[in-house]
Amino acid sequence: MMGDPFESLTALLPANYVHMARDAALASTSRIRHLVTQRKIPDVGWSVNEIDLFVRQIAAMDSNAFPGNVGAGERESRIFSVLVAQRNYNLGHGIGRSGDILAVQPKAVGSSLINHLTNHLVSHALSLAGIQPKPHCFITPFATGMALTMCFLRLRHMRPNATHVIATRVDQKSHLKSVEAAGFRLCVVANSRRGDEITTDASSVAEAAESIGVENVVAVLAVTSCFAPRAPDDLPTLSTWCKDQGVPLVVNNAYGVQSSKCVHLVNEARRVGRLDVFVQSCDKNFMVPVGGAVIAGFDKEFVDSIAALYPGRASCGPSLDVLMTLLELGVNRYKQLLSQRKTIYEKLKSALQIVAAKHGERILETKSNNISLAFTLDNYPKEDVSKLGSMLFTRNVSGARVVSGLETKTVADVRLCGWGAHADDHPSAYLTVAAAIGMKPEEVDIVAKRLDKALQKFKQDL
Amino acid sequence: MMGDPFESLTALLPANYVHMARDAALASTSRIRHLVTQRKIPDVGWSVNEIDLFVRQIAAMDSNAFPGNVGAGERESRIFSVLVAQRNYNLGHGIGRSGDILAVQPKAVGSSLINHLTNHLVSHALSLAGIQPKPHCFITPFATGMALTMCFLRLRHMRPNATHVIATRVDQKSHLKSVEAAGFRLCVVANSRRGDEITTDASSVAEAAESIGVENVVAVLAVTSCFAPRAPDDLPTLSTWCKDQGVPLVVNNAYGVQSSKCVHLVNEARRVGRLDVFVQSCDKNFMVPVGGAVIAGFDKEFVDSIAALYPGRASCGPSLDVLMTLLELGVNRYKQLLSQRKTIYEKLKSALQIVAAKHGERILETKSNNISLAFTLDNYPKEDVSKLGSMLFTRNVSGARVVSGLETKTVADVRLCGWGAHADDHPSAYLTVAAAIGMKPEEVDIVAKRLDKALQKFKQDL
Amino acid sequence: MMGDPFESLTALLPANYVHMARDAALASTSRIRHLVTQRKIPDVGWSVNEIDLFVRQIAAMDSNAFPGNVGAGERESRIFSVLVAQRNYNLGHGIGRSGDILAVQPKAVGSSLINHLTNHLVSHALSLAGIQPKPHCFITPFATGMALTMCFLRLRHMRPNATHVIATRVDQKSHLKSVEAAGFRLCVVANSRRGDEITTDASSVAEAAESIGVENVVAVLAVTSCFAPRAPDDLPTLSTWCKDQGVPLVVNNAYGVQSSKCVHLVNEARRVGRLDVFVQSCDKNFMVPVGGAVIAGFDKEFVDSIAALYPGRASCGPSLDVLMTLLELGVNRYKQLLSQRKTIYEKLKSALQIVAAKHGERILETKSNNISLAFTLDNYPKEDVSKLGSMLFTRNVSGARVVSGLETKTVADVRLCGWGAHADDHPSAYLTVAAAIGMKPEEVDIVAKRLDKALQKFKQDL
Amino acid sequence: MMGDPFESLTALLPANYVHMARDAALASTSRIRHLVTQRKIPDVGWSVNEIDLFVRQIAAMDSNAFPGNVGAGERESRIFSVLVAQRNYNLGHGIGRSGDILAVQPKAVGSSLINHLTNHLVSHALSLAGIQPKPHCFITPFATGMALTMCFLRLRHMRPNATHVIATRVDQKSHLKSVEAAGFRLCVVANSRRGDEITTDASSVAEAAESIGVENVVAVLAVTSCFAPRAPDDLPTLSTWCKDQGVPLVVNNAYGVQSSKCVHLVNEARRVGRLDVFVQSCDKNFMVPVGGAVIAGFDKEFVDSIAALYPGRASCGPSLDVLMTLLELGVNRYKQLLSQRKTIYEKLKSALQIVAAKHGERILETKSNNISLAFTLDNYPKEDVSKLGSMLFTRNVSGARVVSGLETKTVADVRLCGWGAHADDHPSAYLTVAAAIGMKPEEVDIVAKRLDKALQKFKQDL
Repeated sequence: MMGDPFESLTALLPANYVHMARDAALASTSRIRHLVTQRKIPDVGWSVNEIDLFVRQIAAMDSNAFPGNVGAGERESRIFSVLVAQRNYNLGHGIGRSGDILAVQPKAVGSSLINHLTNHLVSHALSLAGIQPKPHCFITPFATGMALTMCFLRLRHMRPNATHVIATRVDQKSHLKSVEAAGFRLCVVANSRRGDEITTDASSVAEAAESIGVENVVAVLAVTSCFAPRAPDDLPTLSTWCKDQGVPLVVNNAYGVQSSKCVHLVNEARRVGRLDVFVQSCDKNFMVPVGGAVIAGFDKEFVDSIAALYPGRASCGPSLDVLMTLLELGVNRYKQLLSQRKTIYEKLKSALQIVAAKHGERILETKSNNISLAFTLDNYPKEDVSKLGSMLFTRNVSGARVVSGLETKTVADVRLCGWGAHADDHPSAYLTVAAAIGMKPEEVDIVAKRLDKALQKFKQDL
Repeated sequence: MMGDPFESLTALLPANYVHMARDAALASTSRIRHLVTQRKIPDVGWSVNEIDLFVRQIAAMDSNAFPGNVGAGERESRIFSVLVAQRNYNLGHGIGRSGDILAVQPKAVGSSLINHLTNHLVSHALSLAGIQPKPHCFITPFATGMALTMCFLRLRHMRPNATHVIATRVDQKSHLKSVEAAGFRLCVVANSRRGDEITTDASSVAEAAESIGVENVVAVLAVTSCFAPRAPDDLPTLSTWCKDQGVPLVVNNAYGVQSSKCVHLVNEARRVGRLDVFVQSCDKNFMVPVGGAVIAGFDKEFVDSIAALYPGRASCGPSLDVLMTLLELGVNRYKQLLSQRKTIYEKLKSALQIVAAKHGERILETKSNNISLAFTLDNYPKEDVSKLGSMLFTRNVSGARVVSGLETKTVADVRLCGWGAHADDHPSAYLTVAAAIGMKPEEVDIVAKRLDKALQKFKQDL
Repeated sequence: MMGDPFESLTALLPANYVHMARDAALASTSRIRHLVTQRKIPDVGWSVNEIDLFVRQIAAMDSNAFPGNVGAGERESRIFSVLVAQRNYNLGHGIGRSGDILAVQPKAVGSSLINHLTNHLVSHALSLAGIQPKPHCFITPFATGMALTMCFLRLRHMRPNATHVIATRVDQKSHLKSVEAAGFRLCVVANSRRGDEITTDASSVAEAAESIGVENVVAVLAVTSCFAPRAPDDLPTLSTWCKDQGVPLVVNNAYGVQSSKCVHLVNEARRVGRLDVFVQSCDKNFMVPVGGAVIAGFDKEFVDSIAALYPGRASCGPSLDVLMTLLELGVNRYKQLLSQRKTIYEKLKSALQIVAAKHGERILETKSNNISLAFTLDNYPKEDVSKLGSMLFTRNVSGARVVSGLETKTVADVRLCGWGAHADDHPSAYLTVAAAIGMKPEEVDIVAKRLDKALQKFKQDL
Repeated sequence: MMGDPFESLTALLPANYVHMARDAALASTSRIRHLVTQRKIPDVGWSVNEIDLFVRQIAAMDSNAFPGNVGAGERESRIFSVLVAQRNYNLGHGIGRSGDILAVQPKAVGSSLINHLTNHLVSHALSLAGIQPKPHCFITPFATGMALTMCFLRLRHMRPNATHVIATRVDQKSHLKSVEAAGFRLCVVANSRRGDEITTDASSVAEAAESIGVENVVAVLAVTSCFAPRAPDDLPTLSTWCKDQGVPLVVNNAYGVQSSKCVHLVNEARRVGRLDVFVQSCDKNFMVPVGGAVIAGFDKEFVDSIAALYPGRASCGPSLDVLMTLLELGVNRYKQLLSQRKTIYEKLKSALQIVAAKHGERILETKSNNISLAFTLDNYPKEDVSKLGSMLFTRNVSGARVVSGLETKTVADVRLCGWGAHADDHPSAYLTVAAAIGMKPEEVDIVAKRLDKALQKFKQDL
């Protein structure tokens, strides 16, 4: 309503009161201008009402919201359902334009602003998490797996004759399937073991490349965030090799933004070698619903070329969710959450060590992985341990995974023995549990307590 | 609250009143059961409140909503922002699972239900629009262009050595770029002219295939919905050829569900030849925000195999928007909108004919295209006509496109002269205007009036 | 959006697109300024999004919404529940101030604006409905009955020795109880019958006044909107008498704003005699939830003195609901609804006449009442007819009332025989049905159909 | 979700997943049944989503939400605006019925449930705050002042010849005006001073009663929550006198529920003497928007008789806000907030003492008042101190009140010198500041800091 309408209010209300309200409105306007000009997450998060109003003001910038607008095309953001319109803040045009997901739509200035502003704020968030220098990035309207596919599709244009992607083994289906979806052959190389940890065997990557022919390798696909006892890949060594060989390195950093260790690996990889692009999940790092991923890199031109490959428009939803969340978080709260997560990880480790000791088990030593933990299940027959997973789920503990090491699965035409364990022959069956961003201290206690009870019951039922 | 809680209310409120409320609750439950069992759009649309309550009840089925649930994984639907949680009905798990976008998530029964139920309702909607037999389909979390890319990625696995997609020329960037994104070479074949209409030249497809080598052709890409004077492609002829040659036919039916002509072409193509898959936009056909597309076909196995190629999860948003809209529409209102659109098309044609006559122009004769119209701009220098587009936009008419025929554009490495006109040498400059589903009769009058005024002003300013 | 922030957007987005959005924002600002300056309902209703944004902008003017505000008092609009905050648009200060419900709160400029603006718009609505000249009015935070009480409490200060309120008989409890709540004695005078209609017997008012002593009469309480066969009171005759005798006239115009006949009576009463104040329901006239009433009159000073009597603050909700509704209606739609209601009344009359004829009943002739109708139930024992009411309710017809004429009720110490019939000895039992604003044509058909069926069943069951 | 519909889901989704969701739904149903049966605030607050769903399920019990319902009356909850419907959860019938605000509406079982359930929960909240025994109470649809008026209107029926209300002096307009609105004469009696505190002078009440005539006294009106240096009234002494003399005692406990001292006084007054009714604000005690008050007492019959006096219906809003808030709070969080408030009061006291010492002022010793504090302004001319209030407000400190003691005001025909100070001749000018429920620790620091700065500036500007 801003600007001069305030003067008109003085006919109804005392001028000094009205001017106080105007000052508040101007302060709010000034915060918005600062946001748009600086394109950084505000230090202190905005209130729910400020965010809500801001989004509505942006949405009013799309042509379908203009008073008196009529549509003469086939896509005019005519939203039938009032509920649908509301949950989307009446934003109907999506983001991107036929050519490019970063293109501005003349009809939809508001949606375009959300798109661009959010990408800038996410870049800021990555740099707050420690990625140096500040990367270029954009949000994709699909989750991590498909975002990796998109990166490979882009690489096809750069390496038109290449056929294979070499991936260090990590037993996560969408990670592996991202290669298949892009139409490439997947070559999974085995990890090595160092103490309890399962780590990158860089030599096996080199060997695989040699056998395939380096010129036939589209890229190496590595991973940072993964379930213990798998350690994040040794990105510096891989990136050094990639640089030497002229092979692109694609990193799945799915939920690694929340981990200083993963972030450090990304930085080091860039510093010493070649890291073309790293992909992260919006939901896992920024606590929004599943839907978007962030494709990031240090070469603006390359990142933009992936965006430019996307044919057509996409939902505005994932960007909007991230925008609203980052504005509410603010720099302070985001940093606080990052540091709280570390504390919670330590708390979880201690709590599980107590349960493990009680049940004659132990927590595997996986110092490189500071997000998840593996709790051995050595005292139970491997054939039976999967039952423990169900028991936890029915006890309202979601997300804990039991790995027996007995399963075999074929993904993207590759047969993987010991599925789930990231290795053919892991000695222990175990349970993995994560301390991810947004977990609350009180959840740790409940997880430990319910695990303890479930193990007791499980033992009895054997 | 349903079921026996009603009995407990009788301690506070008179029993006969309570029982009336219970009867209403039972009726509502029974409608939901019917929906889930039949998986069809209800005949009469549900009220806004019924839909809202239904979605909230479904959302309560995801594990993150279970009272007492704690998360021990890395993706636990911990939504930070209350505004984000609300606009997503607290649904955070997305749809699909690492393996497959149609997979059910144990953690997210509610989200999975939305995914499956919506796909069934969309199939019903397609069949209500006239597609026969009822097709198999699923919603993708990206718009039409990327959905076409997904189809081509799937075809790569079936035709591993093929390299080219042959497309009949239609000057729409994301349509053409969908081929490039999939990593294939695009071969655009010219159309022929029949009176004012620009139509499929099936022989040029055959010639192109011959020169490329049929075995190298991934697929033929045709289009139904397009801007006049471009006519929908002659699908029956193309599908006959495709069947003969064993080449897949992919159809971009972007906003064709609303047109009985486009629907008829799809049906005929299936009847007489080979039509592998047809893709349509959610926003343009079902009046939801941009974000999803529908991949449909008559071979369940093939359609499912495209879904299975998608690596990982996706946003629930596009499905949710469609679900809520179809429930509110009901069969009756949806059919009514389809038939109203036809009437509005005729109204638009008449109104524009009057304006055309007044300004010494005419409406091109494009009987095969019953969605859009082309209004000649013969009395103005071609170099200047683009200005008219801006004039209309600043007069709050969005979506009208001016085509001068003078522009040249390179898309997916293909150089296209006369960009926008679907032909190198279209004789007229013109303006295209569409009568799409959801347009209101009063909008037609305003479009005509503003066009009239804009033309007057345009003439003066020349 | 917000004045100059648009310039800052041009760093992110093309300037010409941004300026289009700015023009739209300016147009919207200009509409708001016009509203605040003119304080009239806009001719064309605003869109849902415009209204929503407007209310949020107003709410941002309350001090609790100021960024950086801290509270040091005991009422600082600290809303605990986010759901409660949202449903109230974060408006927490209510309306009024300790002194007066019309007082402006320094802390709550936004809430104060809602209060004042809405009162102006309601005055406009009353004048659109035909009240002449435009009355002074304000919304009370309670419904009609308590608003009448408030009027009587004000009159106590003007007529400190008066003890009785004389009311023409209308069998509506809150109407009668409003006198008792104010601490006055209620004197109900009998109506007369003219044909089927039950009408004002002005002479009985005069007689009652004489027996009580005119100086002891606080006011005469009359009614316009009432259930057939009761006719609206003969306000001109009553107001003439009131003027002659110096007795205030209070009119319960509960749902009379929607009826040109009731409006005409109010106008005539003012023209020829004395009409101090007339009270109407917000929900029944403006289609909002139950909660507010409008106290209106032609003497600003007197109306304001009632507002000034209210001790303390009140909920902003009833005003907010009315404000949002009137903005969405606009003058055009409001007038259209008023005229549609007349048509629906005629339709209802015809439909019920057909049912009546079929069942050997008739519609009572009540030409003065153009809102409701009475349908005789002469063919059934009076003791049983109440059952028909329940039958209709269980058949999902709400609001139809069956009057047997056999009941006796004591309200405010007055014993009323034939309760419901507005007369001691009404010859028929009957069913009343109303055609109120917002009723839809299709509802009429259903009411008639279900009544027909219910009567058939009722007859069988006798 | 809804009983057996879960079985129908098993056709779409794996049965074991569906059954997990059903278990969660049953748990939720069971919590609701427990709530309705026990009518107590749950120990642990419900989640936002549970509350939201619960309210929607209740709202579906009102007849206007029944599928297929048609309205044949004049008040059928036809809500025009979708925004208004949503913010009211589609609840349109209000609470109460013509006769009584506690009456159940057959048409509106859901609204009636909200009304009754909330009253029970508020009674529980009062007892959690320490009121013993658990009182009877109900929410009024207006704030404290009008609720007091309602109590006096009820007392008129019990003491028909009484004319005066004796009130101990407290300088709060709506408190005093509540007597005038009810049509009684207000007799304000002076307080005495004990050290810095201004306290009840019970003898002056007795003297006033004698001079008026005890039989002419409607009631004594006392206050608990008030601004320092005013102490809560000595309720035990007053109630003893009232019992002796047979005079009703009405207590304005506006925001006293949050103070154990005020609660104790209420309990003691009941124990030793006569306390008819005590009234509290919903917004100030339960952190909801302004709109409702709670009329409470220990004699169910008397409390109910006040409710029964209310003529007609009222808004459901204030009850709904309180219901949702109490469900979210739970017993645990409510108790925690009560105890946090005490801590914050102490923190505020310390922080202000430091500022006072710095500026040569002091905090008045007011041990009986544990909600607010008075900060002397002895070093400034009394004529100027009001400016300090404005300075604080423009520095975004709302709610601090400056009392110069120089003002004179006439309220309800009573002239009060030294308005604001609760006494004619208070020695100091001062500033009052409160630590009310919901205040946050960090707000205390900001208040102190801004006060310090404002005082510096104020001194400079003198």
